[in-house]
Amino acid sequence: MQLTFLTGNQGKLKEFQAFLPDIKSLDIDLPEIQEIDAHAIIRAKLKEALQHHKGNFIVEDTSLYIKSLKGLPGPLIKWFLKTIDVEGVYKMAEATGDVSAQAKTVIGLSGKNGKMHFFEGVIEGKIVAPRGSNGFGWDAIFEPAGHDKTFAEMDATEKNQVSMRQIAVQKLQLFIVQEQQ
Amino acid sequence: MQLTFLTGNQGKLKEFQAFLPDIKSLDIDLPEIQEIDAHAIIRAKLKEALQHHKGNFIVEDTSLYIKSLKGLPGPLIKWFLKTIDVEGVYKMAEATGDVSAQAKTVIGLSGKNGKMHFFEGVIEGKIVAPRGSNGFGWDAIFEPAGHDKTFAEMDATEKNQVSMRQIAVQKLQLFIVQEQQ
Repeated sequence: MQLTFLTGNQGKLKEFQAFLPDIKSLDIDLPEIQEIDAHAIIRAKLKEALQHHKGNFIVEDTSLYIKSLKGLPGPLIKWFLKTIDVEGVYKMAEATGDVSAQAKTVIGLSGKNGKMHFFEGVIEGKIVAPRGSNGFGWDAIFEPAGHDKTFAEMDATEKNQVSMRQIAVQKLQLFIVQEQQ
Repeated sequence: MQLTFLTGNQGKLKEFQAFLPDIKSLDIDLPEIQEIDAHAIIRAKLKEALQHHKGNFIVEDTSLYIKSLKGLPGPLIKWFLKTIDVEGVYKMAEATGDVSAQAKTVIGLSGKNGKMHFFEGVIEGKIVAPRGSNGFGWDAIFEPAGHDKTFAEMDATEKNQVSMRQIAVQKLQLFIVQEQQ
């Protein structure tokens, strides 16, 4: 099954290629619908892509879910970063008195006959004052449970060992292998 | 100019009809793109509508902008209400130490030759603990400047006298009248 990853993000593509060396990428303009449910966002993007192109497409969403804020910001994280930045998100979480959070990757795949499959990876952790300069996005304020470093304080190898993205990619990889048998 | 208001919200339609008695409404499914800029959201909806229908369309966005949160939630307000409700939005604003906010209506019109025009109404105010049961959405936590009632404590007539929506509709009305001359 030839997979095409719909993304313009080279960092994400690289992480995917480590597991799926044959994956291709396609950077097409897919509007992101306003939704807080990652599955709905991914489903809409895959549907849009299938209207114009043929293939087995992959769309990925990695978001931060603060428990005391009932899952906000979730997929809206980029607007939080654009406005109040990581410092503002930290303060917002801290003000609720409970900084527990989940980092979640959802991968959507349009497989045979356009059927959609989803693969998730979830990491528990907490929101902390920004530390570290590696990575991107909200890496500086997320400290995975059982670790004393934020994602931004870890190097790539270290981060990948605990990353929600790798868990989801591994599930996808397993599915692909089974499909090919 | 025959105007068609793209909305499924009967309350909004009623407010518009008070000023523009001849306005029609059309409830079509227009996906809301994920954006924090009301103009961009409206532009995308008008563009989408014009691909499938002919006419002079109106799209409206009324949102709440908290100053200390750099304008959040803005058009993302519905996701905040869905998750943390008005009480959560109040706590979020209160935790920043500055509850100043703006209530803003943006109306977009696709006029002659599909040219888009925008009309805004802005009201200054502050976020308070929920009070009152009239209105809808975030009316219970928004107290307009110069008033000691929230929108939810005002009756329809009282609210309309200070409403951001009426300011925007009046600007639209003026534009229509000038176009027809």
